[in-house]
Amino acid sequence: MKAIVNVGLKQGVLDDQGKATHHALDTLGFKEIVKNVRIGKQIIIELNSSNEEEARTEVTKMCEKLLANTVIEDYNIEIVG
Amino acid sequence: MKAIVNVGLKQGVLDDQGKATHHALDTLGFKEIVKNVRIGKQIIIELNSSNEEEARTEVTKMCEKLLANTVIEDYNIEIVG
Repeated sequence: MKAIVNVGLKQGVLDDQGKATHHALDTLGFKEIVKNVRIGKQIIIELNSSNEEEARTEVTKMCEKLLANTVIEDYNIEIVG
Repeated sequence: MKAIVNVGLKQGVLDDQGKATHHALDTLGFKEIVKNVRIGKQIIIELNSSNEEEARTEVTKMCEKLLANTVIEDYNIEIVG
């Protein structure tokens, strides 16, 4: 069983990396098509568990304790196969 | 229209960040449930385009030129509403 955790900055928090990437894309000729860029982390965790509910509970704890800074970041968890 | 681009290290490339996170999770009491951790980037691009095919073509160019280092990284692109 695998958990895919996406961690991104909350709305309203300045996204430096996203802004820099947006600027770089503009200079590379994508100015007209790119409206906004935001950058986050994707964390893929292989789990020793076959119980989806248990997996989700444990991964939520991991997010709260370590993976996300919940003051400025949001996260979502997807449990797969 | 929005593109979600996930960029991760190729299989076989050492994932320092993933290893460090795995170790930290072990010490936080998740040793039994965590088998492996890999960390990548998630880039969310808002696009001025309503044509999915055009969007995918342009975002593929962005990945090849800037967003991914294709020597060591893989990427996948998801186009959403």
